[in-house]
Amino acid sequence: MITIPLRSDTGHPLYLQIYEYIKKEILAGNLSHPGRLPSARSLAANLQVSRSTVDNAYEQLVAEGYVEAEEKRGYFINPITHAHRFEISGKPLPKAGPASQDPCRIRYDFDPDAVDTVHFPYSVWKSIGRNHLDDPEIFTSGSHFGDYGLRQAVSEYLHGSRGVNCTPDNIVVGAGLDHLLQMLCVLFQRKAVIAMEDPGYLSARQVLVSSGCTVLNIPLSQGAFDVGALKHCPADICYVTPSHQFPMGSILTISRRQALLDWAVEKPGRYIIEDDHDSEFRYKGKPIPALQSLDHGQRVIYIGTFSKAISPSIRTGYMVLPDPLMTLYRKRCGGYACPVSRFGQAVLTDFIRGGYFEKHLNRMRKIYKGRHDYMLEQLSSVFPDTLLDISADNAGLYMILHYHGPLTDCEIQKRAAENRIRIRSLKGYYAALPADYRPAFLLGFANPDTHQIRDGVALLAEKVLLRE
Amino acid sequence: MITIPLRSDTGHPLYLQIYEYIKKEILAGNLSHPGRLPSARSLAANLQVSRSTVDNAYEQLVAEGYVEAEEKRGYFINPITHAHRFEISGKPLPKAGPASQDPCRIRYDFDPDAVDTVHFPYSVWKSIGRNHLDDPEIFTSGSHFGDYGLRQAVSEYLHGSRGVNCTPDNIVVGAGLDHLLQMLCVLFQRKAVIAMEDPGYLSARQVLVSSGCTVLNIPLSQGAFDVGALKHCPADICYVTPSHQFPMGSILTISRRQALLDWAVEKPGRYIIEDDHDSEFRYKGKPIPALQSLDHGQRVIYIGTFSKAISPSIRTGYMVLPDPLMTLYRKRCGGYACPVSRFGQAVLTDFIRGGYFEKHLNRMRKIYKGRHDYMLEQLSSVFPDTLLDISADNAGLYMILHYHGPLTDCEIQKRAAENRIRIRSLKGYYAALPADYRPAFLLGFANPDTHQIRDGVALLAEKVLLRE
Repeated sequence: MITIPLRSDTGHPLYLQIYEYIKKEILAGNLSHPGRLPSARSLAANLQVSRSTVDNAYEQLVAEGYVEAEEKRGYFINPITHAHRFEISGKPLPKAGPASQDPCRIRYDFDPDAVDTVHFPYSVWKSIGRNHLDDPEIFTSGSHFGDYGLRQAVSEYLHGSRGVNCTPDNIVVGAGLDHLLQMLCVLFQRKAVIAMEDPGYLSARQVLVSSGCTVLNIPLSQGAFDVGALKHCPADICYVTPSHQFPMGSILTISRRQALLDWAVEKPGRYIIEDDHDSEFRYKGKPIPALQSLDHGQRVIYIGTFSKAISPSIRTGYMVLPDPLMTLYRKRCGGYACPVSRFGQAVLTDFIRGGYFEKHLNRMRKIYKGRHDYMLEQLSSVFPDTLLDISADNAGLYMILHYHGPLTDCEIQKRAAENRIRIRSLKGYYAALPADYRPAFLLGFANPDTHQIRDGVALLAEKVLLRE
Repeated sequence: MITIPLRSDTGHPLYLQIYEYIKKEILAGNLSHPGRLPSARSLAANLQVSRSTVDNAYEQLVAEGYVEAEEKRGYFINPITHAHRFEISGKPLPKAGPASQDPCRIRYDFDPDAVDTVHFPYSVWKSIGRNHLDDPEIFTSGSHFGDYGLRQAVSEYLHGSRGVNCTPDNIVVGAGLDHLLQMLCVLFQRKAVIAMEDPGYLSARQVLVSSGCTVLNIPLSQGAFDVGALKHCPADICYVTPSHQFPMGSILTISRRQALLDWAVEKPGRYIIEDDHDSEFRYKGKPIPALQSLDHGQRVIYIGTFSKAISPSIRTGYMVLPDPLMTLYRKRCGGYACPVSRFGQAVLTDFIRGGYFEKHLNRMRKIYKGRHDYMLEQLSSVFPDTLLDISADNAGLYMILHYHGPLTDCEIQKRAAENRIRIRSLKGYYAALPADYRPAFLLGFANPDTHQIRDGVALLAEKVLLRE
């Protein structure tokens, strides 16, 4: 018989006290295999508790495998070894904050990946969001390819603004570029050999490689994708940013686009991934139509996101697959759930359908153009032409400063950091740095206001680039 | 000289009319390489427009590569071939709805994956959400591992309710199980050989395989993971559902847990993936502590989601990595953005921190237990014991009906569908169907209310299982 010191004044259920006591005894080796527990009836009588209290405790012990119930024979203790390992360690939770917090905050943030968060139409977003927050519909599972309404809104937007030919059935909604590329690796069963622009989008390169594809880097020729070199490499897929080469800013000319599409149709299984990353913002001329709009051979996979046009934090993007690939996608990737919450999809759908997205884009285009022009103005007022060349300034949310002075990339970065200025070196976008590389860096203008641009550029001159 | 029929009454900018006209002429071959465009000045004079209007048109043509500007020599037309391919096709967008809409709606939905959406505390969720919808902070990029506040809330919850030992720094937030498993495949560089329970979670198996890992299926022994068999297979990782085997419902006993942890520490590089999929809902006894709580060798990767406790549609889950793996994760996967929107993370954080999550769980546990008990009652009132055995009914949101009559799995499914009843065959969860498999199916009780349970079970008897 077991005697258990039960306490009825603690509010802790009796059955749990019995369960915990016996479990402890088993773990300590005081009760052990092949021993048997007293019958539930006799233990209940001994402890002066109800029979069901003991039954509950025994059931829990059986459920966790400490004892075994044998019909009509009773409860037997299972063999347990290394019992010392099985205490639940009471290691307290740390109260500290995040491990890496930047102690020295950035003062002038020219991060090329940033977006403006001041001019977003929060009140519209809020009133749309409010309508969906308590809608039971958004708490049910949705389509694995994304909600049909969102795909419809995206396909209409892409058709109107980018010339993309697609139906909602060609669209897959995903959580930004990283996730969409991961899905493409699944679609191509990790066998794809992908040619990429060098310099190019490093993070995309890393995702493709770490998801199992092979990446070949093709150096740009005259600042744009080198279709001639592509023909001489064993790639079956190429990843390009035709409307605004990332990071160099060039546009793939119509003849190169043509040559690229010709390359794709030459052999079955060839595809072009068109990353149309910040096509929304062009400051000169009208937007360049998407390469996909020229594709009559079903070879272009068009990828876009809302990261620049709204914010990267909403983690929503999409890809447009040609019909045959979409059929394959349904087969190979149809089991993967769409990673965007249905709430997020619903709000975005209404935001686009209500015309707010286009209104926001038009407004931001003006604001960004203002900052862009002001930055150019400030740069040319403080730097001599001989020291800096500016490129990639027709579109997007950054420009490139090519530096012709005596400092190295590292020295520039170090001085900038000392003065709490964030700029990004061009160096980091190269897979293979060319021998004639000269220091250059990306200067984003989406985040800072005019005061910050003025003061930041002045500081960049005084303490970084013009300092002896 | 070119004469362009310009119209000033349409609102369509003049420079675009010039650009479009010349582009069309080039594509049609009327203007061709190595021809030259008239000088901007002379064309402006000819068309009686300002010089900058023509400059803008020419710049756009240059930008898209139709013409080339040569300094001091003028604008030259580039060679264009296959011009017919380059019309932007005016294919109209379809107005139709989604391709596959179920015309015959389900009347009695016993989907084992469903959750209740009636009793969710919408007003709390809405008032939390409202506070974040217009917060500019949620429009900035967050940590790639998930917001620290959410990771802190999750680690406290896991410690308190599941005995999991972790700090926020061990947690990675992801978009549900599929995405977290994809990230594990990246972490293990797709080299992992993963042993899985058979029957088991088919969708997880597909994700692991299609993301490049090798999966070995180990038949359950006595309804639970067979650690003995694991020792004789070349797996270095095993994927288990120890607290509630999916789909069979068994609990991995303490001695098998012990053996599993012993297996893991035997060789470096061995890990256990613990999928704690619906541990929140147990109807008998207290919750089984997580296997991770017993792990003193840093070998358990704990994965959980909010899919059952809140809804799959919020697409949020998390994994807890042992310290050495977390270090590796930062290195190999640190470049991947967290796929959950910052808004979604912020709402969830407040929902947990405010105590609403636990309150909701406690409430749902009672509601689900009520439906569970009622379903058992209804089943036993209409079916003879000899026809049906019920299992997996201690926890989770479904039970398994093992059928001992003359019908086959297919016949049962067909009859159920005819009567608009949704049930799921157990067959589909097997990688290798055992020779002695007998028809069985999963009956979910999370979605239907008591009336639907009563009528659905009655119909299941009358028209499906007891019909001659």
